[in-house]
Amino acid sequence: MEIIKGGVCAAKGFLAGGIHCGIRKNKTKKDLALIYSENRASCASVYTTNKVKGAPLTVTKSNIADGYAQAVICNSGNANTCNANGIEIAERMCELTAEALKIDKTDVVIASTGVIGQPLSITPIADGMDKLVASLGRDNSRDAAEGIMTTDTRLKEIAVSFEIDGVECKIGGIAKGSGMIHPNMATMLVFITTDCAISPKMLKRALSTDIASTFNMVSVDGDTSTNDMVTVLANGQAGNTLIDSECESFDKFMKALNSVTVYLCRCIAGDGEGATKLLECEVSGAKDEANARIIAKSVICSSLVKAAMFGSDANWGRILCAIGYSGAEVDVNRVDVSFKSAKGEIEVCKNGAGVDFSEEIAKEILLEKEIGIVIKLGDGDGHSVAWGCDLTYEYVKINGDYRT
Amino acid sequence: MEIIKGGVCAAKGFLAGGIHCGIRKNKTKKDLALIYSENRASCASVYTTNKVKGAPLTVTKSNIADGYAQAVICNSGNANTCNANGIEIAERMCELTAEALKIDKTDVVIASTGVIGQPLSITPIADGMDKLVASLGRDNSRDAAEGIMTTDTRLKEIAVSFEIDGVECKIGGIAKGSGMIHPNMATMLVFITTDCAISPKMLKRALSTDIASTFNMVSVDGDTSTNDMVTVLANGQAGNTLIDSECESFDKFMKALNSVTVYLCRCIAGDGEGATKLLECEVSGAKDEANARIIAKSVICSSLVKAAMFGSDANWGRILCAIGYSGAEVDVNRVDVSFKSAKGEIEVCKNGAGVDFSEEIAKEILLEKEIGIVIKLGDGDGHSVAWGCDLTYEYVKINGDYRT
Repeated sequence: MEIIKGGVCAAKGFLAGGIHCGIRKNKTKKDLALIYSENRASCASVYTTNKVKGAPLTVTKSNIADGYAQAVICNSGNANTCNANGIEIAERMCELTAEALKIDKTDVVIASTGVIGQPLSITPIADGMDKLVASLGRDNSRDAAEGIMTTDTRLKEIAVSFEIDGVECKIGGIAKGSGMIHPNMATMLVFITTDCAISPKMLKRALSTDIASTFNMVSVDGDTSTNDMVTVLANGQAGNTLIDSECESFDKFMKALNSVTVYLCRCIAGDGEGATKLLECEVSGAKDEANARIIAKSVICSSLVKAAMFGSDANWGRILCAIGYSGAEVDVNRVDVSFKSAKGEIEVCKNGAGVDFSEEIAKEILLEKEIGIVIKLGDGDGHSVAWGCDLTYEYVKINGDYRT
Repeated sequence: MEIIKGGVCAAKGFLAGGIHCGIRKNKTKKDLALIYSENRASCASVYTTNKVKGAPLTVTKSNIADGYAQAVICNSGNANTCNANGIEIAERMCELTAEALKIDKTDVVIASTGVIGQPLSITPIADGMDKLVASLGRDNSRDAAEGIMTTDTRLKEIAVSFEIDGVECKIGGIAKGSGMIHPNMATMLVFITTDCAISPKMLKRALSTDIASTFNMVSVDGDTSTNDMVTVLANGQAGNTLIDSECESFDKFMKALNSVTVYLCRCIAGDGEGATKLLECEVSGAKDEANARIIAKSVICSSLVKAAMFGSDANWGRILCAIGYSGAEVDVNRVDVSFKSAKGEIEVCKNGAGVDFSEEIAKEILLEKEIGIVIKLGDGDGHSVAWGCDLTYEYVKINGDYRT
């Protein structure tokens, strides 16, 4: 497996584009993105578990019920959620996209991200559709990635190549993250494309399995969004034998998919609203994987842990506290905690109690931009990793006045 | 029922005091508090559900297993949690207190609050015990309240008088709050005293019932502390007929207790770390009380709602979002939301969708210091209130560098 350029256009037969059409006031920010496959592709999606769901998710779910899609359209600047005419607008966006691309309207995946509860006008989208389609190109994954950004400060894109049956396959993705990030069963906006030939059923299985240890293990602020969605399109252009059961090729595909999703998870956590640091919490020795996940997620969700990491303060008591209230089955007297980064690793807690450590060295380790919180338990062999970010002044600033 | 002065000394037969003994570096801050009843009192406590528990809680639980206590000692500046010698130190504190007061060491309730995982030296406590006992007085509830404060900016104290069988009873309490506040089944440090005659069994029942709708409905930062505890002492000096079953007098006692606990809840939420505003979320029309509680708590725990309130931004979409991911059974298409304060009330969402409203008037309402978030559902007659605070720069500042 090798990291390659091209994002969602890395795989054969995919084009992407992005423009500013006028949904967002700031004209320098793209607000509409399009991904297109030359042929109908197997398609799988997972959606937020929030009971308040964006209208685009409902429409997408219906459109891809047959397991296939050919295009993804996504706007930023407005979530099209909690609007009386939400479904109507989302369906109209699919129709406009389908007409312009000369495909079936039920082969369109649609997503929206931005403010909740403000009516979304179809006008700028209708007016911008020709320009959007004209923006499609083999080198334009970055334009699509820009088009879906909200408060993200960094573009999120990745692609890898891998081999199945001696055939080179590619898989790539783009993502938006930043705020309202606490995926639960599914979420965030992530679009992944691959030219690997795989049936809708197996694609769905691959995605559902993967997210449990990837996107569901990310949290920026504990708020599960109403509009999050991860979609994979697989158009089969690589020419490998169709994967339609659990086999060696399926495992290879899973591995490639996982390398894309883990990369995007780290991007999303590290670029959380206001974040200055990426936090990676690794739990081992838990009773089982489920308990490991609960603990890892609890630690990276703790406001107090997050604020301590912002201040580069080795306040491990807050980590023990977050383990204690996580609800996981755990022997708190057998918890070891270390901090690590590019500057090294330092143990701060052994068997649930503090150890003598150099505050100076701990500070040096915690001043880095990527911090590992390593938790070792004595309860079994459950293992999990969760990603989050620090809690900063900037998070408060961004969210104290987001709409105006 | 009438609000009176005196805090934990309002009820007959109780003395309180507080001193600086040297646990905290800042000599102007008291760090040791004592409450004393002239006779053995019925005693009930509830404790944090965090699996990482402060040693003082374990010792208290054992001491009051017989339902009685005569004194409460509490230090701030150190939580005595995650320390290898925690139990030993907590037991020694009880012994020293008992010797100085000439009472049984198993009649002492002990609590500690402050940093987790730093050994607590017995020396300043032993050296300060005579001074602490000398500080006891009928007018010194405020000294005890100061002695248990950590990052609290305001002293928290209340008392009320009420009548049972024509006999005047009094009940009062002190509390500390501020950070690591997300009570679950019990929590925070709250000490309540009453001269009402009530059996240990009924006192326990009153407290356990009350906290479900009071302290368990408060959250500052989502972190359930390791050291929280609510204790009530009832010494019977008012002279009413002993309450030892569910009767009219018990109901009156419950009502008086509730007026003290609700007041202290509001104090704790409004003085949350960094808070500029008290948030009160009232949910009505939920399927049942349990669902109402889940929703109210989810809304006041949302970082995005909290930050919006800091910015006086009527971003109701975040409230819908928090209702949607709360896990409660709710028809999201029948949710109405209003904001209210001393400046008036404004409806912003009706049947799950936005209504036209004046952003200017909404801003004026939200600029106040006490904000009501009023949620009406169409699912039944479940009702609940939760209390929280806004998320501010100051919260990040306080917690980015708490230890050093």
